[in-house]
Amino acid sequence: MATFIAIDAMGGDYGLEVTIPASLQALKDNSSLHLILVGDQDEISLRIQREGGEYSKRVTIQHASQQVGMDELPSSALRKKKDSSMRVAINQVKDGAAGACVSAGNTGALMATSRFVLKMLPGIDRPAISAELPTKLGTCYMLDLGANIEATPESLLQFAVMGAELVSAVSGGAKSNPSIGLLNIGEEEIKGNEMVKRAAALLSASDLNYYGFVEGDDIFKGTVDVVVCDGFVGNIALKASEGIAHMVSHFIKYEFKRNLLTKMVALIAMPILNRFKQRIDPSNYNGASLLGLRGIVVKSHGGTDVKGFCNAIKVAAAEVEHAIPAKIEAHLHNTFIDS
Amino acid sequence: MATFIAIDAMGGDYGLEVTIPASLQALKDNSSLHLILVGDQDEISLRIQREGGEYSKRVTIQHASQQVGMDELPSSALRKKKDSSMRVAINQVKDGAAGACVSAGNTGALMATSRFVLKMLPGIDRPAISAELPTKLGTCYMLDLGANIEATPESLLQFAVMGAELVSAVSGGAKSNPSIGLLNIGEEEIKGNEMVKRAAALLSASDLNYYGFVEGDDIFKGTVDVVVCDGFVGNIALKASEGIAHMVSHFIKYEFKRNLLTKMVALIAMPILNRFKQRIDPSNYNGASLLGLRGIVVKSHGGTDVKGFCNAIKVAAAEVEHAIPAKIEAHLHNTFIDS
Repeated sequence: MATFIAIDAMGGDYGLEVTIPASLQALKDNSSLHLILVGDQDEISLRIQREGGEYSKRVTIQHASQQVGMDELPSSALRKKKDSSMRVAINQVKDGAAGACVSAGNTGALMATSRFVLKMLPGIDRPAISAELPTKLGTCYMLDLGANIEATPESLLQFAVMGAELVSAVSGGAKSNPSIGLLNIGEEEIKGNEMVKRAAALLSASDLNYYGFVEGDDIFKGTVDVVVCDGFVGNIALKASEGIAHMVSHFIKYEFKRNLLTKMVALIAMPILNRFKQRIDPSNYNGASLLGLRGIVVKSHGGTDVKGFCNAIKVAAAEVEHAIPAKIEAHLHNTFIDS
Repeated sequence: MATFIAIDAMGGDYGLEVTIPASLQALKDNSSLHLILVGDQDEISLRIQREGGEYSKRVTIQHASQQVGMDELPSSALRKKKDSSMRVAINQVKDGAAGACVSAGNTGALMATSRFVLKMLPGIDRPAISAELPTKLGTCYMLDLGANIEATPESLLQFAVMGAELVSAVSGGAKSNPSIGLLNIGEEEIKGNEMVKRAAALLSASDLNYYGFVEGDDIFKGTVDVVVCDGFVGNIALKASEGIAHMVSHFIKYEFKRNLLTKMVALIAMPILNRFKQRIDPSNYNGASLLGLRGIVVKSHGGTDVKGFCNAIKVAAAEVEHAIPAKIEAHLHNTFIDS
């Protein structure tokens, strides 16, 4: 069955420079994929004519006359950018022309516009941002990564349900009952703030496979399949981890480039260092899901490269294939009706 | 001038196995250091007689009949362990026998006992845990790392004053007016929760060198000298970073140990990898300060090695040398009297 995905072709730090080659790569990798490229019609057609080749057949261009700035306020994007590439791409999902939308644009605007256009699933107040992260044992999913600055115990339970459904679906049954950890500053029952303690009580009483509290280092140990936290903590933990990973790569490069001798060793060690790099390459994990909407929206990092944006398209395609919003809705219905 | 430091010799995961060799190493490295080793008199004397050599002259043993368990509740430690090695070591600071105390014991008990015995500086409600972290450009200090699960805008301002005084003093004047960043999920003024926004207003109006909001990745970029946050966020960010650093080392080892060929390359690359490892070695950063007390207390990681515990003793010695509590008290007095 064909999968249609709308691409905000103008979004991100590099716009068409990244979105077009990434789209063509995604079409090459997945023969049932069709892409609706949204943005400046002339610019996009020119590029597709030049670079599209055989994949042009699976490309539709949808014109949009505006762009949302990377620093634009969400309220301004909503009010003044009704014909932005971001908004028109999301409209494709609402209208049923696309099963998902992918954007590397401004996160706040993408969230506000998605919520306004697509609306939330019943019982969910705001979207949560979820992403797959590498762990020592494989990968885990963490949410919320910054969609909400504050959370209630109830919203943490909703995040857990959404994360569990996402993992269970995209793992293809390998993780049919994913374990859920609640991010806290200690494993003991006595630790943590009131909000986290109340969320723990809700999770314990739910039908989820609740593991208990996990600490910051458990994220990367692979202790659980899904790590749940509020968006303030989640965003800071994620960015701190990105920061240290970046620092580590910087120091490895620095030490191997120190002098002629170390550069020669680097040449010999290159294949090993590349395999290592591959394991934590952010491009392989690019594509965060805005969960809780009545439709699929995937946020790419603004500064990602072709490989990274292509990965975000793959994330969206997998969510379409597994009908994630419908699964979340069914689980939420059961959880909250039963309880 | 001689510096006296009390050591909770029984604390930590390995007790005397780590604290005794680390103490002797610290005495070797610093000829003006005197240590008061607190714990089981017989066990400690036996070891000092056997291993102490010429450094025995700068060791005093103070008997304590109890130990605080690593998982013991702070309230229980306070009530039932009045003759614990931890409590007696802190008493040395209160009585003026030592300028500082170092313990690798249970953090909650150390905090509660320090607060009970030493009391807080005027205007500070609870201690904050601060530690030095590696950055791309050198190091920074971050606080609070978990002493407080919640913070008020006023307490974040207090953390900033304490961090600034610590950095200014221990940098030996190199950073006389340290830059302060407030950890948030965005750099724009519009982002962040109310608590952080109100803290930003207090910091802007203070006499501190306030940089503005910083994000998780800024910690390791070296954007500022002091990163201020509440203990819940700080603890999670720190542990998440430790987790990813650990994962990265694990993957490097894994890739270099893959087969005979990669093992041979590892042999050649060893000096480079060791220099790299040295840069992020947690032992070099072990020793977190409990700031805001009327005395110096340094917390070592419970599972640290000899090198790490020795580093914690050095951190304490530097704080004694620079009379940190007095400097914090003076600055707090000025800040809160002026404002």
